Amino acid sequence: MTGDTLLIDNCTLLPEQSSALQHDCYIVIAEGTIKKIGLSGKRPDLPFAARRLDAGGKLALPGLINAHNHCAMTLFRGLADDLDLNSWLHNHIFPAEAAHVNSEMVYWCTKLAAAEMILSGTTTVADGYFFSDAAAQALHDSGMRAVVAHGIVDFTAPSVPDPRKNIEAVENFIAKWHSRSKLITPAVFAHAPYTCSPKTLMKAKKLADKNNVRFFTHIAESKNEQQMIIDPQGSSPIRHLAALGLIDTNCSCVHAIWLDDEDMDLLAGSGAGVITCPQSNLKLASGIARIQDMLNQNILVGLGTDGAASNNSLDMFREMDMLAKIQKSATGRATAMTASDVMRIATTDGAATLGLTNCGELKTEARADIILMNTSSAHLSPFYNRDLLVYGAVGSDVDTAIIDGELVMEDRKIRSFDLDEVYREINKRKIEP
Amino acid sequence: MTGDTLLIDNCTLLPEQSSALQHDCYIVIAEGTIKKIGLSGKRPDLPFAARRLDAGGKLALPGLINAHNHCAMTLFRGLADDLDLNSWLHNHIFPAEAAHVNSEMVYWCTKLAAAEMILSGTTTVADGYFFSDAAAQALHDSGMRAVVAHGIVDFTAPSVPDPRKNIEAVENFIAKWHSRSKLITPAVFAHAPYTCSPKTLMKAKKLADKNNVRFFTHIAESKNEQQMIIDPQGSSPIRHLAALGLIDTNCSCVHAIWLDDEDMDLLAGSGAGVITCPQSNLKLASGIARIQDMLNQNILVGLGTDGAASNNSLDMFREMDMLAKIQKSATGRATAMTASDVMRIATTDGAATLGLTNCGELKTEARADIILMNTSSAHLSPFYNRDLLVYGAVGSDVDTAIIDGELVMEDRKIRSFDLDEVYREINKRKIEP
Repeated sequence: MTGDTLLIDNCTLLPEQSSALQHDCYIVIAEGTIKKIGLSGKRPDLPFAARRLDAGGKLALPGLINAHNHCAMTLFRGLADDLDLNSWLHNHIFPAEAAHVNSEMVYWCTKLAAAEMILSGTTTVADGYFFSDAAAQALHDSGMRAVVAHGIVDFTAPSVPDPRKNIEAVENFIAKWHSRSKLITPAVFAHAPYTCSPKTLMKAKKLADKNNVRFFTHIAESKNEQQMIIDPQGSSPIRHLAALGLIDTNCSCVHAIWLDDEDMDLLAGSGAGVITCPQSNLKLASGIARIQDMLNQNILVGLGTDGAASNNSLDMFREMDMLAKIQKSATGRATAMTASDVMRIATTDGAATLGLTNCGELKTEARADIILMNTSSAHLSPFYNRDLLVYGAVGSDVDTAIIDGELVMEDRKIRSFDLDEVYREINKRKIEP
Repeated sequence: MTGDTLLIDNCTLLPEQSSALQHDCYIVIAEGTIKKIGLSGKRPDLPFAARRLDAGGKLALPGLINAHNHCAMTLFRGLADDLDLNSWLHNHIFPAEAAHVNSEMVYWCTKLAAAEMILSGTTTVADGYFFSDAAAQALHDSGMRAVVAHGIVDFTAPSVPDPRKNIEAVENFIAKWHSRSKLITPAVFAHAPYTCSPKTLMKAKKLADKNNVRFFTHIAESKNEQQMIIDPQGSSPIRHLAALGLIDTNCSCVHAIWLDDEDMDLLAGSGAGVITCPQSNLKLASGIARIQDMLNQNILVGLGTDGAASNNSLDMFREMDMLAKIQKSATGRATAMTASDVMRIATTDGAATLGLTNCGELKTEARADIILMNTSSAHLSPFYNRDLLVYGAVGSDVDTAIIDGELVMEDRKIRSFDLDEVYREINKRKIEP
């Protein structure tokens, strides 16, 4: 279908500034881009339409942006739950990674993550894991839009045994994927200031800036992180990054839970983004990020599920609901973190934290990443307004997904790749307890 | 099918003390009761089996127990979100109730709730709302097991305009439903100590005890509740109830958020139950109940969704996930509130908070309330152990539901009533903004 025109007819829209549903709309897509949106009754003739998709009245929304994932960790989903972070990491996840992670594993387990994400309405993911080349290939082959970050740590990793070769490996990865796929954008992920020295962090950031790709790092995830930082240059994790000159408009801070007011001001003045993963943070008892405070200070925020080993779901609808509820609870105000704030965080703002433009919106000239949702189920009845998408919808309400103009799921069936093949490959790799 | 024998063949079981799945099992059901469970290969001949249901390898679990709901409030789902409790109640919910609640509304909107609950694996619900007779009829007609509590408040209510007639109305309700339906158990719900005087609370409890039905009350939901209590008899909401002699083995306290150590000790020594509704409590910023502390003190705990106006979902899988995660966060320990604790709370313990016996378990002689789950989807792959039911599953993974031996849902289609008729009745009643 590549390059052909796709007409989505008979869909329902939710205009930004109104709670009223707009029925009988159409969307014309060509070259991976939304070309026209309007009322079906006023639709001009489209003799060039290669395919007409009858949405049957379903709700059309921009696909969701999962701004933080370690996709291939689906293999470790549910392998070890109800454990503290240290025991979980050192006794379960690290040994499992040492034994099972390789390029083929990353390819197939990333594809499993892609299936789960597409089936739950996510059209763009930011991934960071080992063997990023295999991850990028898997996401490309799945038809998902992705920012794939090559990870950097100062110790031996499954994909780069010699940490001195890290920067070179990232450069090769960026060069390979820079213009290889319309769907894949390479990026750099310096793991954390307790696994990367100041020198490594600065090298990674410089490399990202030079290549015009996004820079990510995990920061302030645990209360005691400051004590683990290698050669601290500031009196908090955020001030450490700031002292190294890393916090600017090309930086996204993942987690950012343990921030004091000075850290918040630093972020607010920098133009850097924050990516929050509330379910993972709660499950590992890491803490609750000050996301409503960040919105009050106009800090750009995105939302991610984190990997399936610490969540254990990649369903962004569950993540949205959790973000709203936990912020209301943490601030003690039921008016905090409204559903419309959450929707923006999970779409346009999330895309911005990944450095993506024209993404996460249903408007002319935006990338054609669109989901169609069935809102006629019992649990979405009655459907009064868009807020129910945050507080009531789940991933399985998504019926159809279009990414870059391509139909990747229809009637809840993945069309862009063979899901049964993925299941067979996963079953082969299932870890015996 | 009533009275006939049902054989569930080729199902998978999760034995209590093991994480290993047991494939190729069978369950024989007769007279609404589980008669035999075993391995299909060793199954004795069953010439009397009226119907064989091939589970196709699906996982059989006891149906979930939603221990607190105001079912008919589905009509108000999503009508008013992101508001503080006072504004939500007084500017939105109370006016909507005054305008729209009547016996017919309660019947149809309760049936909508029943559909949503059955479709998400709940087989038993505890309901408390106005027009409890209509609610009981709707739940009976839906084929759901339900504890339906008649509500009591000291002011005019839609179903009982004269509050002096409250006790009489409850007595009539109990008498009518005492042995009318195998599915419906009547109960008493004294709304709260800020809407019921000490005298009313005591009368209601006495009536419940005399009739051997369960007594419920909302308690300690808001931080400032003590200041609203009518004629307080103790220095906290729990001590108020205790002073009135209400807290004993026939009492279930709903919410029970703002409890100090003395309150906890009182509850622990009393044998009373607590029913927690974490999603509603978070969404209304009411607070976080000390549920892990309660388990440590052997207090009986059940789990409920609360009404759809304050959640906005009746999916107990979402509720279970939230209970685990919020307790880990609140205690700061990822080892708190394990998935197996949550499963027990949502099944056997939940049933016990409703005064139900032989309910919520997959064992011989238990009531045959069983769900079959599809665990082969991408988001449940790989499936290592039962914990994933809490951290990864959603209601739509439930494929089949059997209540009291009757097949109420098969292949995600409601069989016990006409869902399209319910949708038509809901659409008629949809509130115009």
